[in-house]
Formats: sequence, C-alpha cells, structure tokens
Amino acid sequence: MANSANRPDTVVISNLSPLVEGGKFPAKRVVGESVTIGADIFKDGHDQVVATLGWRKEGTKDLEEVPLVAGHNDRWEATLSFPETGFYEIVISAWADDFLTWLHDFERRLTGDQDDFNTEIEEGRVILNSAAIRAAGGRAGADAQAIEDLTTILMKSDPKDVPALMYAPGILELLARWPDRRLETRSDEPIVINVETKLSAFSAWYEFFPRCATGDASKHSGFRDCLPRLDDAKEMGFNVVYFPPIHPIGEAHRKGKNNTVTALEGDVGSPWAIGNKNGGHRAIEPQLGTIKDFVWLLEEARSRGLEIAMDFAIQCSPDHPYVEEHPEWFYRRPDGSIKYAENPPKKYQDIYPLDFHCDEWELLWKELLSVVLYWVDKGVKIFRVDNPHTKPVSFWEWLIAEVHLVDPDIIFLAEAFTRPAMMQMLGKIGFTQSYTYFTWRETATELREYVTELTKGEMRDYFRGNFWPNTPDILPHHLQHATPSAFKIRAALAATLSSSWGMYSGYELCENHPLPGREEYLDSEKYQLYQRDWNKPGNIKPFIKRLNEARNQNPALAEYANIDFIHCDNDQLIAFHKWTDDGSNRIIVVVNLDPKTKQESNIHLPLEALGLSHGAAFEVEDLIYRETYTWRESTNFVSLDPRTKPVHILKVKTS
Amino acid sequence: MANSANRPDTVVISNLSPLVEGGKFPAKRVVGESVTIGADIFKDGHDQVVATLGWRKEGTKDLEEVPLVAGHNDRWEATLSFPETGFYEIVISAWADDFLTWLHDFERRLTGDQDDFNTEIEEGRVILNSAAIRAAGGRAGADAQAIEDLTTILMKSDPKDVPALMYAPGILELLARWPDRRLETRSDEPIVINVETKLSAFSAWYEFFPRCATGDASKHSGFRDCLPRLDDAKEMGFNVVYFPPIHPIGEAHRKGKNNTVTALEGDVGSPWAIGNKNGGHRAIEPQLGTIKDFVWLLEEARSRGLEIAMDFAIQCSPDHPYVEEHPEWFYRRPDGSIKYAENPPKKYQDIYPLDFHCDEWELLWKELLSVVLYWVDKGVKIFRVDNPHTKPVSFWEWLIAEVHLVDPDIIFLAEAFTRPAMMQMLGKIGFTQSYTYFTWRETATELREYVTELTKGEMRDYFRGNFWPNTPDILPHHLQHATPSAFKIRAALAATLSSSWGMYSGYELCENHPLPGREEYLDSEKYQLYQRDWNKPGNIKPFIKRLNEARNQNPALAEYANIDFIHCDNDQLIAFHKWTDDGSNRIIVVVNLDPKTKQESNIHLPLEALGLSHGAAFEVEDLIYRETYTWRESTNFVSLDPRTKPVHILKVKTS
Repeated sequence: MANSANRPDTVVISNLSPLVEGGKFPAKRVVGESVTIGADIFKDGHDQVVATLGWRKEGTKDLEEVPLVAGHNDRWEATLSFPETGFYEIVISAWADDFLTWLHDFERRLTGDQDDFNTEIEEGRVILNSAAIRAAGGRAGADAQAIEDLTTILMKSDPKDVPALMYAPGILELLARWPDRRLETRSDEPIVINVETKLSAFSAWYEFFPRCATGDASKHSGFRDCLPRLDDAKEMGFNVVYFPPIHPIGEAHRKGKNNTVTALEGDVGSPWAIGNKNGGHRAIEPQLGTIKDFVWLLEEARSRGLEIAMDFAIQCSPDHPYVEEHPEWFYRRPDGSIKYAENPPKKYQDIYPLDFHCDEWELLWKELLSVVLYWVDKGVKIFRVDNPHTKPVSFWEWLIAEVHLVDPDIIFLAEAFTRPAMMQMLGKIGFTQSYTYFTWRETATELREYVTELTKGEMRDYFRGNFWPNTPDILPHHLQHATPSAFKIRAALAATLSSSWGMYSGYELCENHPLPGREEYLDSEKYQLYQRDWNKPGNIKPFIKRLNEARNQNPALAEYANIDFIHCDNDQLIAFHKWTDDGSNRIIVVVNLDPKTKQESNIHLPLEALGLSHGAAFEVEDLIYRETYTWRESTNFVSLDPRTKPVHILKVKTS
Repeated sequence: MANSANRPDTVVISNLSPLVEGGKFPAKRVVGESVTIGADIFKDGHDQVVATLGWRKEGTKDLEEVPLVAGHNDRWEATLSFPETGFYEIVISAWADDFLTWLHDFERRLTGDQDDFNTEIEEGRVILNSAAIRAAGGRAGADAQAIEDLTTILMKSDPKDVPALMYAPGILELLARWPDRRLETRSDEPIVINVETKLSAFSAWYEFFPRCATGDASKHSGFRDCLPRLDDAKEMGFNVVYFPPIHPIGEAHRKGKNNTVTALEGDVGSPWAIGNKNGGHRAIEPQLGTIKDFVWLLEEARSRGLEIAMDFAIQCSPDHPYVEEHPEWFYRRPDGSIKYAENPPKKYQDIYPLDFHCDEWELLWKELLSVVLYWVDKGVKIFRVDNPHTKPVSFWEWLIAEVHLVDPDIIFLAEAFTRPAMMQMLGKIGFTQSYTYFTWRETATELREYVTELTKGEMRDYFRGNFWPNTPDILPHHLQHATPSAFKIRAALAATLSSSWGMYSGYELCENHPLPGREEYLDSEKYQLYQRDWNKPGNIKPFIKRLNEARNQNPALAEYANIDFIHCDNDQLIAFHKWTDDGSNRIIVVVNLDPKTKQESNIHLPLEALGLSHGAAFEVEDLIYRETYTWRESTNFVSLDPRTKPVHILKVKTS
C-alpha cells in the first residue's frame, strides 16, 4: 500500500473481493451486471474512516470514484456495474477524515460535562479552513466560499448548535468533496473485473450438422441448404447456432457409421477428423460449400439475430496439410514416424495430436492463433472449443488473450467434460463459458447443490456454466427411450437454471435411441448423414419456443447468478426464483422432475425476497401455459402432471 | 510460472495452501509442528504427472525436495515440519514424467489386442538411456550402470514381463532419481512458513505486579522480593511470568485507588502511565529496583525455566521525558499545547498518546524500536504489547520485523480486545500470540464455535489464541462472587482448549470481588498496593499445578490446533480430544460447565480417531485426580460433580 506523502499506511485495507486466486485472474461480469466490491477497512484508534472505490477501464487514466459503505465487522462494500466491455481496474482508498472525526468527537463531548468548547471550535475552524483552501485550489470557488461562510457561522455558534449546523442539508456533502487525503492508504494491487458482452452470459444455443440440414440422408447438405434450419432456430427463440467442424474431413483411417473402424464407400466421416488434400483448419469441406457460402450464411444468420458458433478442434487427420508441411509439430516414434492419438489400449488412427511443447512450439502456437483470427476476420464471433483440456492451459491463456487484443468480444465455450480443477482453471484463464455436469445431475438435491456451487461460491466469479441436456456425444440415460415429457423437463431445467443453455438438434424431435449400453446416439450424425423430418409429429418445438420466449422477455432469466432455491415438501419437485437487481422482474420456476407421474406439493416462498407482503394476495402468470394463479402468503400448492404440464415458469405480478 | 527451458507451462499448479491473504503474509508454525502443503496440480492429456515440494530456509540456496502425493480431485499434498526457527520458502514443481507415462501406457496396452511391442520397447530404451545419461552426468555411476543393465534386460524381455521388471524392488526409485525435468513447471511465488519457537505456541503465563510481590499492602515490593513469586509460578507449572510495566510512573494527573481522578498522598498510580523525572520506557521505577536488579531477576527466572514477559505500552504520562524532548511527537491543540488521550466524552489526562504519523514519524518509530531492542539486549525474550490496536498496524509490522532481524525468537503477545478484523490483522503482520474472546465464551456451543474458528479455519495459519480466564482489567461476570469450582472450570478450559493460557495472580486464590456493576476488580492492583496471603486457605494452587503438569507431560496438550470436539448428550458438559501426529499421546478432556450442579452424560468417542478399536476395552487415566477408568466402545458415561471433580483430563492408554 502507499500514499502520496510516502508515509507508512494509516489505514488497513485487506481481504479484497472479488479476487480469483488472490488476484491472479480477473473476476468476470457482463455489461450491466452488478458486482459487489468489498474489503475489510479499519484503523487504529477512534478516527472516523472514509473509504472510496476508484475504477477505470484498463488503459485509461482517470479514476472515477464511488463511496464505499461500512457494514458489519469492518466490512466495506460498494456495488456497481459497467456499461462497456473491457477490463476494469478497481483501487480502494481510505483515510481518517479530520472533519468527520472532529464532528463525531464534538457530538460525544456534548454528552459529557465539558463546559468550555473554545479549543474544539478553534480546531473545527482550522479543519474547515484547510478544506476551503483545497476547494479554492481545486477551482471550486463556490465551495470555498460556502466553507468560509460555514466557518464564520461556526465561530459564532453555541457549542450545542454545532451538530445541527453541520448536519444541515448539503454540508456533509460539501466537506466530503474536499477531504484531506494526504495520508490516505491505497490498496496494493487493483481488483480487475473482466466485463464481457451480454451474450457471454445470456445465450441459447442450437447445434446442428450443416451436412444434414435438409434432413435427407441420401444427399450431403451444404450451407446454402441451411436457411430453413436458421429460421427454425430463430422461431424457437435461440440466439446462437453452433456447427460442428466444417473443414475437409480426413480420408485415411476414416471412421464408418456408428464409429466403426473402417469406412465404407460413401461414408462421410467424422467432422472432428480435420484436414485432407482440400486443406486444413482454414478450408471448408467442399460438399458444404465455399468460404463465400459460409460468409453468406453468417450474414443470413446475423440478419435473423443469430450468431454462428464455430467449432475449434485442434487435431489433424493423417491427411491434414500440417503433416507434410510441419512434421516437427507432431509426436514421433523412435523410427521417426508420426504418432496417432491413443488412450491405451484405445487407438485413434484417424487423428494425429499436435505436440504443443515441441521445439517449434512458437510457430505452431502462432499458426493456431492465425487460424482463429482468420475466422474472426470472416465474421465469426463465437468459438466452441473441442476438448480444451487435452491441450496446455498455458496455450489457451495465451491464445484467448491474443484474440481479445483483436476483438475483446469474441466468445469461447470450453467443451471440457473432465475433472473439476481443470474445468475451473479453463474458466479462470479466459474461457467465456463452459459445458457442465448438468447433463448428469438429475435429482432435486443434485441440481440444487450443483447450481449453488456454480453461482454462490468462488466459481461465480470466473466460471459460466452453459447447460446442455444433450450433445452429439451424449444421450444421457434419463433421455434414452424417454417420453416428450422428459425432454421438456430437462430443457426447462437447462433454460432456467442457467442463463446459457444449448441443445443438439433432434432434441426438439425427442430423438431417444442410444447405442445399446452407451450414453451415445444410435446412427450418430457424427459419422453419417441422417434422415429427419424436422417437423415430425410429437415434436416439442412449441414448448422450446415458449421457454426461450420466457427467457428473452424476462431479464431475470437473462442473469446468471441471481438464483435462490425454494423449499418444496415433495422432493420430486424443484423450485427456485430469479430476479433483477431492481426487483422489476421476478420469476418463480417449478419443475416436476418425475416425467411419468403427477407430483404435487406445497412450496414455501420467501415472500420478502420476492418483494411480496404477508396477507396480500398476488398473481403469478405461467409463461408457458398462459394461465394466471392467485396465490397468497408463503405456502402455496402446486400440481404438475408431466403429460400435460411438467413445469411452471411463473412471472410474479406485483402491480 | 516458469521452467528451465523458458517454455510455456506444461503443468498447472494452482490454489496453493497455506497462503494467508493469497500469500501476502507467511503462515505460522512452531519448530516440529507439522504443516500440510497443498496444491491443485494437473495437466492436459493422459501423461503421468510427478510433483515435488522444494523447501529452503530463507537466505539459503539449495532446495531440499520432498515428493507430493496426489489425492482426490487433483489435490496434491505433503506434510512436513521444520527443526529450526526461521522463514521457510516452499516451491512446488511438477512435470509429465516420461518413464512413468511410458510404463503406465505399456500396462494398458497389454490389456488390449496389441501384438507387436517393438516400438514401445524401443521407446522405453530411449527413455531409460536418457535417464542413464542424466545419472552419469550427476556423477551417479552406480545408478547409471543400474539403468543401463535394466535397459539390457528390457530389450530381451517378453512384453508381458515388462511391468514386473519395472515394479521390481528399487526400480521405480532408481528412475525417480533421474527424471527429465526440462519441461517442469514451478509455482510462481513461494509459500512462506514462519517457523517460530515452541514457546510461541506452548506457554502458560502467570501475571503479577512485582510491587505487590510480598502481599504486604503497607510496603512497595521490589524485584528483590519476587523470588517467592517465581518459585510459586514454577511450582504451579507456569513457564512465563508477566509483569505489568515496570517503568517510572507519572505524577501529573496520577489516578487514585479504584481509578479515582485524584490520587492521594502515597497512591502508587497506574504502571501504564509511563514516565516521570526518573525516566521513561528505558528506565525502571526506583521503588522496584535498578536495571541490575531486573537483570538479576531475569536470570533467576530463567534458572527456574521461566521467562519474564515485559509489558510494552506505548503511552506517556505528562511527565515522560519525551514530552519535553520531543513535543513534535505528540498531538497538539491549535494553541500548541499537547493533547491528552480522549475517547470523548472520556478524558485520560494522565496519558499523552503519540502521533505515529507526525512529520517526525521516522525518528519516533526508530526510538520505539530502540526501546524494545534495549530490553532485548537486557535479556527480555517476550513482550506483551498493550493495546496494539490503538497504534498503526504498519508500525507493528515494521517493528516486529526489525526486532526479528536481531533475534527471530522474540515473542510478541497482542493485547487487542477489539473487533475481529483488527485482531486477525495483528496476527497476520507478525504478533506471535493474541489475547482472545475466550474470557467471554461460556456455553459449550460458544466454546466449540470459537475454538473451531480459531483452529480449523484460515485463522489457524496466522493467529494463536492465548486463553485467559481473567486479567487485571477483567473479572468476568461468571467469576464474580464465584466458588472455587468456577475458577477450576475456567482454568481447565483455558489450559486445555488452547496450548497457551494465562492467569492474572489472585486467580489461584479465587479472588472474586468486582467493582459493583463492572467486569473490573474491586481495589484493583492497577492503582494500589494489595494485601494478600499467597497461601490463603481454599486456594486452588494444587489444581493449577496438576493442570500445568498434565500440559507439561503430554505433548498432545502442547500443540495448538490438534483439537476435535466429542459429542456429549448433555450440553452442560463439553468434551474434546487432542493428540500428537504420531498417535503416541492422546488426551480426552471433559469439563462440567456448570459450577453448581453435578452433571452426567454419555459421551460419544470417535474410536478410530482415538486409535481405539471396537470391542476392546481401554483404560483412561485421569491426570488431575489420578484415577483410572476402564471404558469400552464409543459411548461412555461421565459424571462430574463441581464440588469434588469438575473436570476429567484423561490420558488414553493404548498399550
């Protein structure tokens, strides 16, 4: 800590928050989202301490100051939000305020038996005089004059009238503008807040394979066939469309249908085996179209309010141009041949992993950065990163920072289904969003504990969970051969427990056939073209549309961490509420977790937190089923039949 | 992070512990006390990671390495202890181990359908060969030869025999001595552990006023009268004797008996009003003796195994030499006169506080340091610091560091009865021990919660609570007009809940008369000489002796944080156990918190934690009352009658 007079610290400022790993990493928020800055601030003795928070956007010069307010046990806080993306530095300053200390002591003296206040009045005069000089020096002539006038009155005052004089309207504010901060203490290192785009925390993703866009398995679709898919995604209320890799697919060791080792003639292969004679990570699979087609589609999407997220999968097929051009980037056997990927005893002959710590690592890293920047230049704003946990964390930290120098609004979603420490670290070093364990959290207790861990603990500051009920890799057990009710339930949970959710297409058609004994899809699109009626009877597209509509129209559902659970007597139901800071929008969600049986329960609302009062009735409007209920007091009865109405998304009407 | 090859990090090392405020302050231990160092360590992919902890005493060069062991969720730990006082730096290193990765993959390959292992054997040869070269380069010819021999066998081995070959005795250890660490990652900043003297955590303090040593109120005692007190303290088993200030006492505005504003002729004044014409903080009150007498007493104490703790109270009477010599160090009124201490409307005309941020602050700080060093030079090893929270934290941080440059074993006890944040910060910046809220924690719940906060949370690493049932300033309500049982109960709690405790003399005589309506003593020694029979009938000296004897003979009671509570069905009882890391000493304490009524309860022992097994009987020996009980299983019955036996201090006999 330090102060302008180069004196030892006068005040202690400690335990700053939010700090991610003690300040090694910034805390994340999005534009307009509130962040509460806190610190323990105290000093020796009885002086009145004043503390402020100064913030500035990184690279700018002037600090904007906001007062900190003292709470319990020397904890001081201020809550603020930022209107623009960027890194913000926050510095805390605190000092013993001579005027407030004098006034406070003066008041307490009046409670004793002191008769003569000449000394104290004179001390006040000296303090005011210094303030007037500072005001004059700050070219605030009016303030200087006002303080001088105050001094004149003080000198003539009866001591018992002094507090009233100083607490008159505007006086404390006047003096607060001209404090003596020569001995102020400043926090050592700034708190850094990374303010990102709203889309970073509020996104609804729809994933589809463009090669299957038409739903006709006899024909490879291309970008020019994708408009109906975009229209459907838009109609269902999504704001991000995500494509698996769109690059040329390797031919050597190409995988066949259902991941068989040998492809048959005409098998299209896995788009994650990237690269062939047509090019690598900068190229487009010719059957999908050209770069021009892709850029056209990006623009078509954007005109519908949709962003297209691109898959960034750093792995090469044996046919990838890098293999010939840069054999030094790959792992080698003792005989010099290039190693394919393995997780013994499993072998992945269709993929060559890159050696990020090879002697030529710098060239490799720069090449990969240039790939991302190439697509940024083409207009891509969002990257879904495949298996980031199989590449060095230091690589991602560097790459994301470099990309953000070019465009700070680029979003990276980490597809890391792995152990917690790695998933958390990827969030800390810069990934905007992360896939989560939501897919496997089923019971009310599991869901409550997981969402609480994400939104109430330290992860809240660096990890944004994107909840997916399915992915092309995962058809979880609870959706296998399941009814549309189960699909509605899991979609509703994903779309409301987190402000970012996503689904892999086919979900809206309740596709539910697994590879036997696995959590994978039968006849997965990963390895073949897929026949589909995108308007198959029994689809839940209207339900998905209402879900996203509720999200898009209610800012409470657009915020990530503003969630608290509501007690239900029946644990087959889960209930929670979300809100906006200003209380203008409040949503109660109740979900029947049992897709087969009607479940009923009393639920116990926290009336005060919901902005409701005891005794008065209030209305809640179901945003999915367009019904309104009149509720009263904290305990209310809910009945959810999965066949007709598995969820309530209730808007609290407080008018 | 960094590595010798100046490459990006290959491994992630994060969430290091213990770190006090993210590493701003060292974590504290004492000589021989264990500290568990932990970190999240992981890397991308499937490599086998090896991690070590390197430690060195600050200022020395070579790191000594200890392996870290992986536990749940990528958490790695090692527990160590240090044999000498000093600051120790700990650095964590981790790398992907080529040999272990190869061996692990080899084993997994054998579970698959692979036939040809020539490539893998050749890879093993290359890895072993590199290790042999490193061994030879490290002048470990025998290891190099052993690795070469191993290579020869490997080349001739059937693949299925390779694991057995490598897991043969000594082979893993041999290769672990010569790993390839060129791409290792090292933690950014060291964890620092401040290892202090055993006395820093294990101390039993006996406070008395030397001017009252003889117990004859008609005569001012001096240092030469103190030997019987030292003998008594020694006999009761204390290891620290603490004196209130021994300096000349101010005469201007001297306080009279029971803190009256005007002293009468012959009133001795408060020793905390320091300084008169005979000198200030370097001088000794003439009625106590001379410096020579003091040094003689220090030596007499030390020959009995006692340290004398000195009071360091930075405040001056109006007669203190500083007032004339350095008026610039004091606060002034507008008329230039020096300000006495105030906490309006209270006035303390007998004390002038110093202005630590005056223009001449550097001279003032250095003078105060030189006062401490003066007494260190005379042989004082322990300072009890009066009201440190009314002086700047930055001052103490500087002063303690400076003193420790001269003698790192000097102990500072913070007498800060104030809000938690300040008390905690004083521990962080260097105070060895701190007074606590123990004095006011009465119920089983209050005591459990408080001790848990001190020993199980983050405070464990920087705050050592010294538990005092009374002080010259505090006769708590529960001891006012109380029976000897109450005194025994509070002493037993203090002496066993913490490894440091202290009592202010008179406690052993059960002195229990308060100033009416206050938590202070009637006719307090702070303001007058005091008449006492040090062997007054009904004293609890034998009980205190047994208490300290139990502490002195049982290392489990000498450690600070090794405490866990035991469930009692009756909440009028509190029970807990303490242990040594090696399990060689285990103590169970049960205290009846009700000084008036016999209380009985089943208590529920954690058998496994106590090193006991189900089914077998075991003996517990009461160290106070010299009785042995045979217990069995976890639930055992305890009956404590405050009139005869308010506590059990039970040694578990596991022979």
